[in-house]
Amino acid sequence: MPELLTKLSFEGKVDQLLANPDRGSGLEKGAVSKAYFRFSGMEGDCHGGLTRASDSRMLKQYKRGTEVRNSRQVSILSREELAEVAARMAIPAVKPEWVGANMLVSGIPDLTLLPPGSRLQFPSGAMLVVDAENHPCRYPAEIIARHHPDPAVGFVKAAMHKRGVVGWVEAEGLISSGDRITVWIPPQRIFAHK
Amino acid sequence: MPELLTKLSFEGKVDQLLANPDRGSGLEKGAVSKAYFRFSGMEGDCHGGLTRASDSRMLKQYKRGTEVRNSRQVSILSREELAEVAARMAIPAVKPEWVGANMLVSGIPDLTLLPPGSRLQFPSGAMLVVDAENHPCRYPAEIIARHHPDPAVGFVKAAMHKRGVVGWVEAEGLISSGDRITVWIPPQRIFAHK
Repeated sequence: MPELLTKLSFEGKVDQLLANPDRGSGLEKGAVSKAYFRFSGMEGDCHGGLTRASDSRMLKQYKRGTEVRNSRQVSILSREELAEVAARMAIPAVKPEWVGANMLVSGIPDLTLLPPGSRLQFPSGAMLVVDAENHPCRYPAEIIARHHPDPAVGFVKAAMHKRGVVGWVEAEGLISSGDRITVWIPPQRIFAHK
Repeated sequence: MPELLTKLSFEGKVDQLLANPDRGSGLEKGAVSKAYFRFSGMEGDCHGGLTRASDSRMLKQYKRGTEVRNSRQVSILSREELAEVAARMAIPAVKPEWVGANMLVSGIPDLTLLPPGSRLQFPSGAMLVVDAENHPCRYPAEIIARHHPDPAVGFVKAAMHKRGVVGWVEAEGLISSGDRITVWIPPQRIFAHK
């Protein structure tokens, strides 16, 4: 029987974990060495919750503020992709705390292009499911502009398809900085109808 | 900005809804004319719940019985695909109640191949998210054998890639037999790494 999920031949690594307990203080998050991920999201971070209010990204599907299941509990970005974004902007770095990251990872090429339904597995047994690629928006652009007011290319343009993925917790567990990440992807095929 | 979800040009239709309040009585479900779908699943059906115990399909990812988020709340099958399965088996029909369907739909070609992360939207605002294709297993095969003990081809073989999808509730609402279904799919691209 064909597999529902296929393990990639390489592993990723957790470079950094970040949390922001208070959404009112803005998008920027602070580093933590480890965190427990529960079905409700990352402990100590304000983007958790089993449901959330739909936002501007979903206006074609929902009236703004509709209660929807929270498939954006966790924001995951790639160290390599952020370095590429910084290079495009001609600035020294785009720090993960500027773009609302919960997790900075390395070793997973094209992290942002991971297919929906991919699974990221951690040594504790914790499992995160990729819901979708995250599109760059103006909030991080404003934060970056405080540090680098005159980039060669704006963040929204520079970060397209490099801004990481969002996802939700399928299995609970502790995740620590330095953890290895096993990646599982669903069958790769193009849907034949439009 | 590229869209996170693209609406397909055609609509599907809800042909039948089925529920089984008691898992102990087996896989077979009974028809209902409408049902409320909540974040916890389909009201009145035993496969609901925000979490569930992992099963044999997930043995490469989890020890059996691990508590995982329930992304198999709802089982959706295609009338056209079930007719193809019956034709392969050379039996008059494979009834949705024999295969544990919660919803029988028509008008969505290759329903089983819908990509993970696809959304099915209903007139009430209810939204279901496709987690994965459902692989045929021996339980429905046993039920079908009670009705048709000698098929030309066994169910597991005949139903591969025709056995529908499983998914979870992103937005709550009533779904009724006869409802139109709007289908949204994520970006179609093959992940470049293995």
